[in-house]
Amino acid sequence: MKSTSKGDKTRHGIVSLAADVATARGLEGLTVGDLAKSLRMSKSGLFAHFGSKEELQLAVIERAREQFEQHILPAGVQAEPGLSRLLVLLIAWSDHIEHTPHRGGCFFAAASAEFDDRPGPVRDEIARLTSLWVDRLIREAATAKSLGQLRPRADPRQIAFEVHAFVQEANWAKQLHSDQHAFKRARRAIRACLHREATARGRRSLYVHQPKRIENP
Amino acid sequence: MKSTSKGDKTRHGIVSLAADVATARGLEGLTVGDLAKSLRMSKSGLFAHFGSKEELQLAVIERAREQFEQHILPAGVQAEPGLSRLLVLLIAWSDHIEHTPHRGGCFFAAASAEFDDRPGPVRDEIARLTSLWVDRLIREAATAKSLGQLRPRADPRQIAFEVHAFVQEANWAKQLHSDQHAFKRARRAIRACLHREATARGRRSLYVHQPKRIENP
Repeated sequence: MKSTSKGDKTRHGIVSLAADVATARGLEGLTVGDLAKSLRMSKSGLFAHFGSKEELQLAVIERAREQFEQHILPAGVQAEPGLSRLLVLLIAWSDHIEHTPHRGGCFFAAASAEFDDRPGPVRDEIARLTSLWVDRLIREAATAKSLGQLRPRADPRQIAFEVHAFVQEANWAKQLHSDQHAFKRARRAIRACLHREATARGRRSLYVHQPKRIENP
Repeated sequence: MKSTSKGDKTRHGIVSLAADVATARGLEGLTVGDLAKSLRMSKSGLFAHFGSKEELQLAVIERAREQFEQHILPAGVQAEPGLSRLLVLLIAWSDHIEHTPHRGGCFFAAASAEFDDRPGPVRDEIARLTSLWVDRLIREAATAKSLGQLRPRADPRQIAFEVHAFVQEANWAKQLHSDQHAFKRARRAIRACLHREATARGRRSLYVHQPKRIENP
């Protein structure tokens, strides 16, 4: 993806515009005619880059995945494995969604609701990527447990379910009710959940490795 | 709404079909032409009942509200005010969504994601009704606190945020990932949250008034 030929640039521009339209109008709301008009291209010119609407939808999802990974994964790499990394990843995710430039809020939340009952490659890819993220949270909680940072009875799947829920709820409350406190509530709930499930050793790791700059970039 | 004239029956039939289509294809996916065809009516016959697509969308939302209230509110009336009622309402809500006949899962979750960035009367009504429900949960938690059922530091808004998140997360996980344990996890998280925030008196009220038949109808 390092090539910067003219064709790549055009393709990049199409996907950027499509991503913005998709968060506001849905992935099904993308029409090749409207996109071509906005970009002052012919429909056939646009079709030269994307053979079908579905291909364009998949490219938009791929772009969202790249942005997600760029914003969230580096923070995790810098943190210690286990509870510390789990917290850092969750705070980075929460910040990424809270400060998204898209009117539609979290791309994957909007896409999930739109496609959960539309079988096909687009739905499969949304399900695959969101599963990967939930699995990542479960795995990090399991690592924390194996490091003695979580109580013996702590359930990594249950913890991942709860903390993931808080960020999705915040996105919903901010998008629908313009609730400006929602993400603060989500972060409070995440910290309380991890603190509650942690051993004394786990609690120390929660406070030592908590980089301030990630919550307030 | 007790009248059963022929016109009312026709209107009822239109809304029933529209509600089913809307949960699968979205409220914007409703087209008067397709509905008329399925019902073997003329488009103008259908327009005689609903002057516009927006009016039909609002009627579908009104139907969803009625179903929500029919399934959930009676359980609450039978329970003691405070923590007991809060738990009963949440379990009834969770059951209502888990066992919805609609392919699209929770009607209001799907409608929220579809309309959160489409200003107008439809979005306003979805926001109003979902706010009413969140407010109801906050109010019940506040009642519990005033009855000495919650710890002095318990925050009714934070509690409502968290328990509401669990049910929405379960709907998401079931719809997108076919997760058959999601609602069980949500109920486990709800009980744990209320138990944690409760005083000794509050905990007694949680266990005394928990009708088995509501969780396993």
